[in-house]
Amino acid sequence: MTYNYSLGEIAAYLNAELRGDPEIRIQGLNTLQNAEGGHLAFLSNPKYSKYLSDTRASAVILSEKSAMDYSGDCLITADPYLAYALISEWFSHTGSRYSFVHPSATLDVSAKIAVNVYLGPNVVIEEDVVIGSGCRIESNTVVGARSKIGENAHISSNVTIYHDVTIGHSARLHSGSVIGADGFGFAPRSAGGWQKIHQLGGVTIGDNVEIGACTTIDRGALGDTLVGNGVILDNHVQIAHNAVVGDNTAMAAYSGLAGSATVGRNCILAGDVAIVGHVSVCDNVIFTARTLVTKSVTEPGSYSSGATPLMKTVDWRKNTVRIGQLDKLARRVKKLEE
Amino acid sequence: MTYNYSLGEIAAYLNAELRGDPEIRIQGLNTLQNAEGGHLAFLSNPKYSKYLSDTRASAVILSEKSAMDYSGDCLITADPYLAYALISEWFSHTGSRYSFVHPSATLDVSAKIAVNVYLGPNVVIEEDVVIGSGCRIESNTVVGARSKIGENAHISSNVTIYHDVTIGHSARLHSGSVIGADGFGFAPRSAGGWQKIHQLGGVTIGDNVEIGACTTIDRGALGDTLVGNGVILDNHVQIAHNAVVGDNTAMAAYSGLAGSATVGRNCILAGDVAIVGHVSVCDNVIFTARTLVTKSVTEPGSYSSGATPLMKTVDWRKNTVRIGQLDKLARRVKKLEE
Amino acid sequence: MTYNYSLGEIAAYLNAELRGDPEIRIQGLNTLQNAEGGHLAFLSNPKYSKYLSDTRASAVILSEKSAMDYSGDCLITADPYLAYALISEWFSHTGSRYSFVHPSATLDVSAKIAVNVYLGPNVVIEEDVVIGSGCRIESNTVVGARSKIGENAHISSNVTIYHDVTIGHSARLHSGSVIGADGFGFAPRSAGGWQKIHQLGGVTIGDNVEIGACTTIDRGALGDTLVGNGVILDNHVQIAHNAVVGDNTAMAAYSGLAGSATVGRNCILAGDVAIVGHVSVCDNVIFTARTLVTKSVTEPGSYSSGATPLMKTVDWRKNTVRIGQLDKLARRVKKLEE
Repeated sequence: MTYNYSLGEIAAYLNAELRGDPEIRIQGLNTLQNAEGGHLAFLSNPKYSKYLSDTRASAVILSEKSAMDYSGDCLITADPYLAYALISEWFSHTGSRYSFVHPSATLDVSAKIAVNVYLGPNVVIEEDVVIGSGCRIESNTVVGARSKIGENAHISSNVTIYHDVTIGHSARLHSGSVIGADGFGFAPRSAGGWQKIHQLGGVTIGDNVEIGACTTIDRGALGDTLVGNGVILDNHVQIAHNAVVGDNTAMAAYSGLAGSATVGRNCILAGDVAIVGHVSVCDNVIFTARTLVTKSVTEPGSYSSGATPLMKTVDWRKNTVRIGQLDKLARRVKKLEE
Repeated sequence: MTYNYSLGEIAAYLNAELRGDPEIRIQGLNTLQNAEGGHLAFLSNPKYSKYLSDTRASAVILSEKSAMDYSGDCLITADPYLAYALISEWFSHTGSRYSFVHPSATLDVSAKIAVNVYLGPNVVIEEDVVIGSGCRIESNTVVGARSKIGENAHISSNVTIYHDVTIGHSARLHSGSVIGADGFGFAPRSAGGWQKIHQLGGVTIGDNVEIGACTTIDRGALGDTLVGNGVILDNHVQIAHNAVVGDNTAMAAYSGLAGSATVGRNCILAGDVAIVGHVSVCDNVIFTARTLVTKSVTEPGSYSSGATPLMKTVDWRKNTVRIGQLDKLARRVKKLEE
Repeated sequence: MTYNYSLGEIAAYLNAELRGDPEIRIQGLNTLQNAEGGHLAFLSNPKYSKYLSDTRASAVILSEKSAMDYSGDCLITADPYLAYALISEWFSHTGSRYSFVHPSATLDVSAKIAVNVYLGPNVVIEEDVVIGSGCRIESNTVVGARSKIGENAHISSNVTIYHDVTIGHSARLHSGSVIGADGFGFAPRSAGGWQKIHQLGGVTIGDNVEIGACTTIDRGALGDTLVGNGVILDNHVQIAHNAVVGDNTAMAAYSGLAGSATVGRNCILAGDVAIVGHVSVCDNVIFTARTLVTKSVTEPGSYSSGATPLMKTVDWRKNTVRIGQLDKLARRVKKLEE
């Protein structure tokens, strides 16, 4: 896709300082390294500043500091990365949007669907569903009975929303995501085996939430699983029954909350972080990649557990086998000290 | 959803001792903390006993021991958690079930479908499929050629069952699950690259199995991948080709068996447990969260590997870097001792 | 399924030496342990050589070395495992293939679809899609606008391919896989919360690629995410935006690349290997199961990090708690030495 804006228009949109020619035409966004003539690039991570002098971009978004090293056309703003994000949104809206219900969609007569909604081929909308204005629901997605989707949601193809799920406005759900499947609840039977605990709760999701591909949010056993406003979930995330995710918390790929785990606001779970059941994490906590959170965290900060450093396999074997002897080793050191 | 039963009816259903008024109306299940008038609550985990005295529930399910501290209306039973599970099943059946084939479903003429079956919109049933009595297969689910599904299965939307898969009675499959995709089998080519090993086996699954959202069970290379009776699988589980899962084994989210791994009966794999290929695990084994099982286990018990304890990131870095020096450290201690 | 070939035909197909009767009829492939009369078995892993003398197979594929211990009918070849892989491909082609567009498929008029293509029920093909000759796209799969799929692809049911994705020839995609969902890109807002970075790139995938069930490959932020020729991806794999996977690299289940990570050619990522963002790995590297790759790797070889050895949980607790004291322990040893 190509676009066609003047640098001046973009400066006005960003409320950024323009240094150079406002009539320059911008036809695309790109990185400093890959930009061609007609492209707007940006410099945010200092690691990439070495590419600034040689970029072929027609203009660059820079901070005040990095602009001192650059004599070409540029936009100057406090946070070039945020500026790039804002332009990416603008450019992504260039594609056509239209309201339309494909004739192959199956709609229960009791569903309440706003007028300017797109429902793609083979979409299924069950009884008493409510779909807000401006929603776009793509091919082969299913919305179960009594679920409510707020305004301006964009739900990709092959998504499954079970019954009794509530989603706020401006949601973005990606393909393969599953909202409202049964929580994993079973009581052991005295004779062996498992008695299923039917999951009678639902899921309540706030506004402005992003849900990645193949991410799952289970319904509550009793009461709802809760996902706050502005939460962003990557692919392959798992939110178990009755877990709570606070506003603006971010979870990268493969991160999961076990049943009734609670995570506060503005937390960051790097990839593959697992929080065990019934544990509670306060606001403003960061967990590094692959951390296993086995107890509650009550103070903001960065926490870790998990992997050993990366080594050659032959060294790793030699060293990790010693972990199995570590308690004895510590006792031997104690004895030596005595 | 609300219900309407008398406490006496519920006592009879559970075969529990009733202490108090059998005419009390119960309109819902809830936890001690969140219950309102008209709700039935339960106390199982002693951690929640502090909520017993103040609950607004109209009645509570208690053990004989916890009933001693409670003067309100209650049902007394040996296992309150199991009792709750049984009522949850009863309550979940209140919703209507009906048999119906949606006109948009695609059925091969050779398929054998029992009369009282529900097939939702856009369901696809390929040649020679057999669907047992009482099955409910929801929107956009696909069942491949020659697969057999036993009685009373409930298969949610957007499930994929490949060809030549056999599933016993009373199965529960959640959305996004995939049964019978190719196992990951490739032979290295001498010139580099991979020669695919076509997966000529199938999948055989027992009775009363639960399969979570986005869970995958691959078909066998030669012969079938086997999942026993009463097995319960959470979301994002992976069962590779020719693996064997014994009866009543439970696998929590992200747990996986590599090719030809065998797990016995009544095992519990907490979240994110991985069992490497060709390893065998006996009956009655528990693996704690995130354990990597690299060798066979022949004695029942609880086993672990994996993560370090949770620490502040700054401490974790300082300590884990020492793991790379651990073999040397152990040798230095040895020398000191000498 | 059963087949019917003579041992002589199979020897010719494999270009293998035949020892015994070329007229023997072969109706199936099987392992040494499970083979019956009419089956062809193979011996590759020496661990299974104990089953050779007692096999009921009508013939066995052997290396020259293992053939010395066997007096029955056999095919002799340098690599019996590769030979088995080649026969599995032959046998898998016995099933019927036919070109057909199911009447319930939705095709945009602008799509260019080769004549001998199979499109199953409820397949959705959006505008300007190109589908090459010999492709088979199964039920309920969606191909987004402007995506191109090369010749002879086999795409199973319930796959989602977003817009602007290019896939080479002979691809094999399994159910639940999602190609081209948005990368996980957000800029922090100064007032708190996240500004979405719209993902304006696409995905480019080479020839002869295998993509497992519930595997996700995200589109690039700017420019494409790249997957080379001959890459094989198991189930539940994650390739984040702008990651690069080199030719013939294999990734087992749950392995993931974070944003802009680059992996070279002929690498093997055993199960659950995670590579963090912006890291680069050279050709011919092996990572053992559950390794977390936190820095670039510039020399071929085998690398590890991750789990402690498998122990009884009681021992594991005792030992891993010492990891939190490891830095102090090392200092104490230093002091003792002084």
